Amino acid sequence: MGPDGRVLELSSLTADIDGAFLEGGGIERVRSALADDRLPEAGPYERIGAPVARPGKIVCIGLNYSDHAEETGATVPPEPVVFLKAPDTLVGPDDEVLVPRRSVKTDYEVELAVILGGRARYLSSPEQAARVIAGYAIANDVSEREFQLERGGQWDKGKSCETFNPMGPWLVTADEVGDPQALGLRLWVNGELRQNGSTKNQIFGVHHVIWYLSQFMVLEPGDVVNTGTPAGVALGRGPRAYLRGGDVVELEIDGLGRQRQRMGQA
Amino acid sequence: MGPDGRVLELSSLTADIDGAFLEGGGIERVRSALADDRLPEAGPYERIGAPVARPGKIVCIGLNYSDHAEETGATVPPEPVVFLKAPDTLVGPDDEVLVPRRSVKTDYEVELAVILGGRARYLSSPEQAARVIAGYAIANDVSEREFQLERGGQWDKGKSCETFNPMGPWLVTADEVGDPQALGLRLWVNGELRQNGSTKNQIFGVHHVIWYLSQFMVLEPGDVVNTGTPAGVALGRGPRAYLRGGDVVELEIDGLGRQRQRMGQA
Repeated sequence: MGPDGRVLELSSLTADIDGAFLEGGGIERVRSALADDRLPEAGPYERIGAPVARPGKIVCIGLNYSDHAEETGATVPPEPVVFLKAPDTLVGPDDEVLVPRRSVKTDYEVELAVILGGRARYLSSPEQAARVIAGYAIANDVSEREFQLERGGQWDKGKSCETFNPMGPWLVTADEVGDPQALGLRLWVNGELRQNGSTKNQIFGVHHVIWYLSQFMVLEPGDVVNTGTPAGVALGRGPRAYLRGGDVVELEIDGLGRQRQRMGQA
Repeated sequence: MGPDGRVLELSSLTADIDGAFLEGGGIERVRSALADDRLPEAGPYERIGAPVARPGKIVCIGLNYSDHAEETGATVPPEPVVFLKAPDTLVGPDDEVLVPRRSVKTDYEVELAVILGGRARYLSSPEQAARVIAGYAIANDVSEREFQLERGGQWDKGKSCETFNPMGPWLVTADEVGDPQALGLRLWVNGELRQNGSTKNQIFGVHHVIWYLSQFMVLEPGDVVNTGTPAGVALGRGPRAYLRGGDVVELEIDGLGRQRQRMGQA
């Protein structure tokens, strides 16, 4: 989307916004094309895809807001809790999300997602993280709580179900986001406000998280990091708050746009 | 490798053995080219790569041999324990494996890896799994036990370090493997036999595992499933058994060839 709200076409620059595009100076080429008014307005479209294609991995931080840790009965972790989602859970911001078969505890989590633009391997300090962050987007870290918590103890089983990671609509570059620790996050189910937090309450801030992860794994361009969710998830509200087919979930983060998903049934 | 032990060149058929190749009947094209003697012998090569390129995900089963569950102090799980490894941990069977910085508990795990050739989504029975399995390979599910077990409780942090998933040398098709529950697995460190098990002692057999996973996530062609390790890992042997730079790890599974990795330092 251009600065004036028009939706512009990037197909003259790239087939996809992916790791190779981000690593190869793609954002600078978009800026330059924008400045020269070289990007045509997009024609009608039926669907908005995720703002990064084929991430190599989706890494998630658990219990990263103290109010959320408290509502789930967990203690505040002394260092980031890390888990992975299958990368093929990625869908567009307004795509249908499927309640898995035999699920009774499908839950939502509004999260600030980081999209990597460079490689992060043993960064020497959190300050180094700024160099490798391409930008930010909204993610819904959809979670099946029975699969996650009551079926063996490793969370990935309840995090990697089909369609469980809506992302977008936009990738907003880091310079346009400004301070990533000052963003309001909100989520509604059928119009009822369920989550209403701010990234200022993250236990481990974005730059700390990226530095920390780089001590354990190599983050590559195009990888996605979901940085945790504030309080208000169904897990903390009781059985009736879980999602069912037909429910509508809406998410918003300051400056990053808005998502809207209708729940379907797998 | 051809049936007579010669190494043959597949480049006339595909640039890579990957999900698209496996899904698109690639194995049948190789069989047919072999039968017609259309594959030239490979020239000299410096390195053997992993036998599948760019898996979308690497899914792992924890504690899937009762002797291994016992040695780690865990109870035998009532259903498969599932976790993920970052797909970019994949390296070739004889590549250097890096001990992470600040690691004192880098461990080895010989495992039977399944390579998916078709899509698995809500399979109706374990018998259905045979249709989606392209073949098998050796994997070393390298693990950092402090990162895995003492740093927050979710295992992925100790499973996704750089170079932590050597695989190969061969992808052996399911028909050539025969019964996947009758394969001996062995692992040596500096010539000392550390693991010596059989897939007949898997708690959840290969077909059960693939069926089970398909109830929680969609498995795609090219995806890899590591099906667990038998007893003998360093975690069960004591502090002196962990890997250090310079150590040599060798792995073997009946009919699947042999790996050899020299440990380096990240």
